[in-house]
Amino acid sequence: MSLIDLLLGRPLKSDEDRNERIGVLAGVPMLGLDALSSAAYGPEAALTLLIPLGAAGLRYIGPISGLIIGLLFIVYFSYRQTIGAYPQGGGSYTVAKENLGTFAGLLAASALLLDYILTAAVGISAGIGALVSAFPKLQPYTLELCLATLALLTIVNLRGVREAGLAFMAPTYLFLASMLGVIGLGIVKAAMHGWHPTPIVEPPALPEAEATASLWLLMHAFASGCTAMTGVEAVSNGIRAFREPAVVHARRTLTVIIVALAILLAGIAALCHLYRVGATPPGQSGYQSVLSQLTAAVVGHGVAYYIAIGSVLSVLCLSANTAFADFPRLCRMIALDAYLPAGFANRGRRLVYSQGIIVLAILTAILLSAFGGVTDRLIPLFAVGAFLAFTMSQAGMVVHWRRKGGEGSQRSMAVNAVGAVGTGLTLVIVLVAKFTEGAWITVLVIPALLALFYGVHRHYRAIAREIETAEPLDTTGLEPPLVVVLIRGWSIITEKAMRLALTLSPDVFALHVTADDEAKVKKLRARWARIVEEPARAAGLPVPRLIVVSSPYRRISKPLLDALGELQRDQPGRPIAVVIPEIIVKHWYQNFLHNQTANLIKGHLYFSGLEQVSVVTVPWYLSR
Amino acid sequence: MSLIDLLLGRPLKSDEDRNERIGVLAGVPMLGLDALSSAAYGPEAALTLLIPLGAAGLRYIGPISGLIIGLLFIVYFSYRQTIGAYPQGGGSYTVAKENLGTFAGLLAASALLLDYILTAAVGISAGIGALVSAFPKLQPYTLELCLATLALLTIVNLRGVREAGLAFMAPTYLFLASMLGVIGLGIVKAAMHGWHPTPIVEPPALPEAEATASLWLLMHAFASGCTAMTGVEAVSNGIRAFREPAVVHARRTLTVIIVALAILLAGIAALCHLYRVGATPPGQSGYQSVLSQLTAAVVGHGVAYYIAIGSVLSVLCLSANTAFADFPRLCRMIALDAYLPAGFANRGRRLVYSQGIIVLAILTAILLSAFGGVTDRLIPLFAVGAFLAFTMSQAGMVVHWRRKGGEGSQRSMAVNAVGAVGTGLTLVIVLVAKFTEGAWITVLVIPALLALFYGVHRHYRAIAREIETAEPLDTTGLEPPLVVVLIRGWSIITEKAMRLALTLSPDVFALHVTADDEAKVKKLRARWARIVEEPARAAGLPVPRLIVVSSPYRRISKPLLDALGELQRDQPGRPIAVVIPEIIVKHWYQNFLHNQTANLIKGHLYFSGLEQVSVVTVPWYLSR
Repeated sequence: MSLIDLLLGRPLKSDEDRNERIGVLAGVPMLGLDALSSAAYGPEAALTLLIPLGAAGLRYIGPISGLIIGLLFIVYFSYRQTIGAYPQGGGSYTVAKENLGTFAGLLAASALLLDYILTAAVGISAGIGALVSAFPKLQPYTLELCLATLALLTIVNLRGVREAGLAFMAPTYLFLASMLGVIGLGIVKAAMHGWHPTPIVEPPALPEAEATASLWLLMHAFASGCTAMTGVEAVSNGIRAFREPAVVHARRTLTVIIVALAILLAGIAALCHLYRVGATPPGQSGYQSVLSQLTAAVVGHGVAYYIAIGSVLSVLCLSANTAFADFPRLCRMIALDAYLPAGFANRGRRLVYSQGIIVLAILTAILLSAFGGVTDRLIPLFAVGAFLAFTMSQAGMVVHWRRKGGEGSQRSMAVNAVGAVGTGLTLVIVLVAKFTEGAWITVLVIPALLALFYGVHRHYRAIAREIETAEPLDTTGLEPPLVVVLIRGWSIITEKAMRLALTLSPDVFALHVTADDEAKVKKLRARWARIVEEPARAAGLPVPRLIVVSSPYRRISKPLLDALGELQRDQPGRPIAVVIPEIIVKHWYQNFLHNQTANLIKGHLYFSGLEQVSVVTVPWYLSR
Repeated sequence: MSLIDLLLGRPLKSDEDRNERIGVLAGVPMLGLDALSSAAYGPEAALTLLIPLGAAGLRYIGPISGLIIGLLFIVYFSYRQTIGAYPQGGGSYTVAKENLGTFAGLLAASALLLDYILTAAVGISAGIGALVSAFPKLQPYTLELCLATLALLTIVNLRGVREAGLAFMAPTYLFLASMLGVIGLGIVKAAMHGWHPTPIVEPPALPEAEATASLWLLMHAFASGCTAMTGVEAVSNGIRAFREPAVVHARRTLTVIIVALAILLAGIAALCHLYRVGATPPGQSGYQSVLSQLTAAVVGHGVAYYIAIGSVLSVLCLSANTAFADFPRLCRMIALDAYLPAGFANRGRRLVYSQGIIVLAILTAILLSAFGGVTDRLIPLFAVGAFLAFTMSQAGMVVHWRRKGGEGSQRSMAVNAVGAVGTGLTLVIVLVAKFTEGAWITVLVIPALLALFYGVHRHYRAIAREIETAEPLDTTGLEPPLVVVLIRGWSIITEKAMRLALTLSPDVFALHVTADDEAKVKKLRARWARIVEEPARAAGLPVPRLIVVSSPYRRISKPLLDALGELQRDQPGRPIAVVIPEIIVKHWYQNFLHNQTANLIKGHLYFSGLEQVSVVTVPWYLSR
């Protein structure tokens, strides 16, 4: 078993690809994990901005959460409709492209790509944030832990996550159960103590107020809190994963997710208020996540605490994992429309879209490194992409209903229009509030992505035009190629290549580049006459000529190109087929030992610009 | 101009390779730089070990330097003889292999490879040491500066250093001139002040004595100081670079180098003694190299100081550069003997042995990072490789003379035997003295390298046995292949591939994988009949059959392999040639846009184990 097999799993054949259709129970973890886990960083992001208000800040977390929950339900009703209208899967890219045109589709796509990168980065950094809250000694290693987690996720995803459904189920429901448990218990305890409960573990004291509330500050907090809504579009993308009737199952799943998320957001806001828990300054020693403080306040630092924090850590890391499923899939769709390199549409050795995974991993690593692995610094970039995609999708749905017309379309259009306006307004608020803190980056990145898309498309179009022809096949002047077999000596590999060459053309040459002296060359010629020329002549076959080229420093490409150039001069216009035997190795690292010369020669041939030269690779499978 | 062209220079054709033969004047910089620059770290390495003795330590630098200079002359006389005996170039690998056998040769080779990595690492770290002595503010960035220098050297060497001779000349002679100037001036000044000169810039005070001199400590200092001798074997490797009479020029060059190095070593020892200059603790703030202190003491901190330190910095970095010439060259020689992957023997786009350069860069980067870029920590590893190679080479020469016999061979044998014993003894001292400080690493690395050599060799041997045959060409059962052209649609690229295919076999198929519906497929078939089948039939050619394979998810490899498997079943034993058009791009990054599918298909074909399938790549050169 080779190292890469060990890391990435053995290569899968293409037919080992089966989809199991899921119901609501499996759908909630698989498509809802990203949305639900947002509860772990959304409220905290809002609270972080309220830190300067000191204890007074807690007054505002209720109204802000209420506003976000309201927006959440608007989005919910909009997406219910998208599910009905696009049962084949209505991602923002598809919906925007089909209804608003290619540019709108690509705009949504670039927003989503950014969103996925941030989902990966924020998921990992928030998960590690939970970890360092539980084990403060790890705080100085935040970035290292983030990058290690990223590396692990990348490897797992390059392996292909076939059992994703099951692996997601346990942590998601554990997370839901423990968070709902903490919220329920916390509220009951508070009610029993006349709404003035005593925390089991006292949360860090809230700082002195340094500022008073302003509309600007509250807008900021709201904009940050909106990150709690990221991920809710996943169900509308993944309808095809559901059992029939898929639309019904998808809608039920979305309902469960939205209701659960709303309860989590409301509950966290209530507990913060009741237990006087605020955010602590992120990225500094003494940092403790809000969920960690809440859990400790309600259940103390016992086993229950570690189970809850463990479930938070795992759903956050798994939510990063959803980006590893979505990003490559979206890249593939864009690549199929020729706006990204075609390679993104190809599946790798484990039936996953490896290129997309690798690109995502690299970009996430850059983002994590640039922002030190601190969630709070990533948040300003986050909501822009998500809300831009929401808005494009809802706007697309509005056009969809207008085009479709008929009964009920007016009402549906109104619902999606409310969604579009709600998410669009939020997008503006987020952009304005967060502009100087990092949202400006998205304003650069999205146009850059669009430029990339159109640049790639232009290139493909130009080439398509260049190679386009309406002429029928030209059948004149067809001549069999001059076949040149590169040989090192006489072996069964050479024999296989020679046997193929003899069937391709009456003009076969064997080319041998050597540093040996004349005596040895003479011996080779004699041997060649005996073991190749004589049998060929006897069988009435064309007799392959041996060409020996001397190269004192054992250089190969130059003498080879010279010899080919000479053949070309002798018979201009004749195609030339260079036959190169290639050894197929069992283990990847053996490639260092073989075919380097073959690859070099191919490179030189293509660099030479000899247009008539084709390369025939004859594989030889090593038996061991 | 592409980015890689900009970084690495345009690719060179193989014939742009010319050697200019050199004389003594150019030979001293080109082959002596490594040896001469050792003066910049050898004495300092010895003095660093004398730090615990305080001022008393200076008493011992004279005797230690004297011992090293004595050893240097022993090695000098030995190598003079090697030059005479191996005028084609007598590197330790060659001399040991030819006289002592393959194992001894590989032992010398592994020692040398290690030595070259350390030459690169120590050259860079000592150069940066000189820089941070002049600009102490840079001290915290030592490792970063080292890695940046390494990156620069790597790029320069991947470009190919064609003007190396000239570029080396100025800094080498500037270094010699300024160092000899400082030494001369320093001694004259000292003599004028009754051998008690006043330094212009007072060197840092010598620390209090913490220990008294012991044989063990002096042995350590001697072992470290021996690094001053690294690099003196270069002339014996490079004799072929000299003008005729090459042996005479090489010997004269060696003489100049050895005498200059001896003067430098003696002079530095004398100045240290006269101006009370010792080493400062390396890798800590306040570190200042010995040469920097000496220069400042003699000429002050004016322009002369910066010129001298600048020349030290540049020769040290250039001495690292010699490793970039030697390491790949040695790897190539080992690869030609099939003890390293054959790829090391291939030259890259700039006529340099790219693989060797890249491997050296990676290993040097690892070494620099592991040791924080501090010269002093690298020194214990350094001398082992160099002295092992010296010893193997001298021992090989002893055998050489014994075999050769004849007049004067007794005397020559005695000279080389003295060399072998001298360097062998030093090797033992270095190993013992430095074992716990890092020399143990070399004791692990050298056997590991030997194991690698033999593992590679065994693999090549096994394959050679597997493919070996004495049977003549089997001419029975030759049938033209089934030719399968992969097409996306009809274009001039497809046409070129079809035209070639039609000359190769009477059985030509075109295979098209599509996600399109039946109506579109029907249209394609109609078009195919009109633009391919009809003209072919009219011209009396075999009629290429169109095979359309439907693949709803636009996957390519699986349907392709299925179709090939079916063809194979229908006509077992017939070879199959899959023709894949490939686009040859102008810029490297355009490769991301093309041929990804072609490469993937090739990979899948080779993974499939369909032994009868060969791949024919038909290049299409984009006109833009």
